[in-house]
Amino acid sequence: MKLQVTQENLGRALNNVAKIATTRNTLPILANVLIKTVDNRVCIAATDLNIAVTNYIGSKVADSGSITVPARLMQDFISSLPGGVIDMKLDDTKLHISTDHHKSVINGTPADDYPVMPKIKEGKKWKMPSKELKTALNQVVIAASNDDARPVLTGVNFYTAADVLYAVATDSYRLAEKKLMPLKEEVNVLVPASAIQDLLRILDDSDEEVKVTSDEQQILFKKGDVELVTRLIDGKFPDYRKLIPEKFKTTATAPKGEVSNIAKVSSLFARETAGSVKVSVDSDEKQISIDSIASQLGENTAKTSAKTTGDGEITLNSRYIMDALNVLTNEDVFVGFNEKLEPFILRNQKDDSYVHIIMPLKS
Amino acid sequence: MKLQVTQENLGRALNNVAKIATTRNTLPILANVLIKTVDNRVCIAATDLNIAVTNYIGSKVADSGSITVPARLMQDFISSLPGGVIDMKLDDTKLHISTDHHKSVINGTPADDYPVMPKIKEGKKWKMPSKELKTALNQVVIAASNDDARPVLTGVNFYTAADVLYAVATDSYRLAEKKLMPLKEEVNVLVPASAIQDLLRILDDSDEEVKVTSDEQQILFKKGDVELVTRLIDGKFPDYRKLIPEKFKTTATAPKGEVSNIAKVSSLFARETAGSVKVSVDSDEKQISIDSIASQLGENTAKTSAKTTGDGEITLNSRYIMDALNVLTNEDVFVGFNEKLEPFILRNQKDDSYVHIIMPLKS
Repeated sequence: MKLQVTQENLGRALNNVAKIATTRNTLPILANVLIKTVDNRVCIAATDLNIAVTNYIGSKVADSGSITVPARLMQDFISSLPGGVIDMKLDDTKLHISTDHHKSVINGTPADDYPVMPKIKEGKKWKMPSKELKTALNQVVIAASNDDARPVLTGVNFYTAADVLYAVATDSYRLAEKKLMPLKEEVNVLVPASAIQDLLRILDDSDEEVKVTSDEQQILFKKGDVELVTRLIDGKFPDYRKLIPEKFKTTATAPKGEVSNIAKVSSLFARETAGSVKVSVDSDEKQISIDSIASQLGENTAKTSAKTTGDGEITLNSRYIMDALNVLTNEDVFVGFNEKLEPFILRNQKDDSYVHIIMPLKS
Repeated sequence: MKLQVTQENLGRALNNVAKIATTRNTLPILANVLIKTVDNRVCIAATDLNIAVTNYIGSKVADSGSITVPARLMQDFISSLPGGVIDMKLDDTKLHISTDHHKSVINGTPADDYPVMPKIKEGKKWKMPSKELKTALNQVVIAASNDDARPVLTGVNFYTAADVLYAVATDSYRLAEKKLMPLKEEVNVLVPASAIQDLLRILDDSDEEVKVTSDEQQILFKKGDVELVTRLIDGKFPDYRKLIPEKFKTTATAPKGEVSNIAKVSSLFARETAGSVKVSVDSDEKQISIDSIASQLGENTAKTSAKTTGDGEITLNSRYIMDALNVLTNEDVFVGFNEKLEPFILRNQKDDSYVHIIMPLKS
């Protein structure tokens, strides 16, 4: 193998790929990235056997070949180099990398020992601009569970209903649902939230289309020259639809910044009570308030003016309120609830494509 | 106690003070900050029994009094509030804090149980602008040891020689010395590096004078309304003066950015060899190069053009090189050394008030 690439392209590819490589697996080669010539391009890839990310970059290829090298060292090294042309040359398993001022040799492991990267060609297809998909997945993935005891709750469910594609996640304490786009084809896949986090590192705020293909076992996200393939989670996502209330006895609408601020302040006093705070809406005073539950530390009440209907109070985990507010856009926030033990919902007032549900605590 | 302060003043005072409060001490009240009226001001203070920081802020005091409250909660809470007037009122040991939108009660502990803050009035005095002192101490404190086995090496030594005040620290592997200012009075005190770190959080880039007073046991740094008092370390700082070489067989001068870059890149390959790198100066090629020692990972050579005298090579810990480069100003860096096992020095080319010495490794 003998080739030239630019530091900019190689650095970007390693940033997309290297995080997938893991030193926690018993297979030491999985801590490496694969570097392989494919015609006039170089393929930079890594897999942890569940998720695989591949990034093709343009290259002047003099001799074809392949090698794997330690991912973290390679990423740190290339990102430390100044921009410009990098020469790479393989000598047995030693990868020689040089620029004007730097000469280095990285000891590699033959690519033959590296697992075959998964392929997916046929399947259900849809696509969406990178920016929109990024916003949507950031809003949804926060509600996924990281408790492996119930695998279906560690995933994001992409599914169609009445010709609309949805993404949804829940850890059973909260749920986040986003209407993605109209889609005639029937889709129903459960994607590991960890793979969605990896995908989010690759997505940017551009309008470039992300092409998605899924079969029974895997899903592929393809953005330009970067591909992420992950195994799907086996199982049936809970039927949550009936949980989302359609009418509310009590509602309030207020600027997001104000609501975030009173939630944050009250949460400080809720450390000893596992984050419990009481959200109250008062239609006489036209205000929403968030109170911490009195504890050893003290107690706190914070309020802000709001457009309201009805009166009521409900006990919630303040961390969940703040997580939800963090992914809403900077506009007015709508909150609504009915009885003390029924779901509490948050969304932007003007946009009902995203809805976030928090299950109340017993108070 | 009943008073009004601004969120801005109280927040700033808590940022200066609260870090000193510690939950690691067996005395629970040391996790608190002291709030005490003193005439028309409020004193915000904390101590860990070694270091004490006091910050006075202007206040409308209606009723005098004092209380202590949990430092972290108070700091987080006040910094979460919007700017403007804050009302505080003490009711037994409950501190009521309110603004337009917030009402809170923090459960305090009576101030009678709080240790008396140390005082220092008479002693050796000198003063220096905040900005200059901050730069100097940042340059020196990095060389102090954090190994309590040799207490004198965990301090910064302020001392006078030939009517000049110096600050110096060493962990026996490296040494940093800064010429501070002319001073006739004889000073020789050993200040804990941890107190210097606390002081650095208080110092800013202003020209405000920092007034320093030391006696046999303590030293006081006073910047405006903020005072830091710390116990001194008992013991004699090593006589290091003869370690600093006056002549060099080999020298190189190059832009700091270039030297930092080649040091950083080579250090990546030095992870397995505890950071060992070889610094070489070549006067034929007019260059300085930094090579990692070959290891399982691979090896690296990085070089940059330099003004040089003599040839030579020396083995150093790359982390020490990078620490030293980090505190030098963005100008040309001068390095000089003699034999393989003799001290290596770094400083800015144009300014010899700061000198950093690294002891070489056996190669």
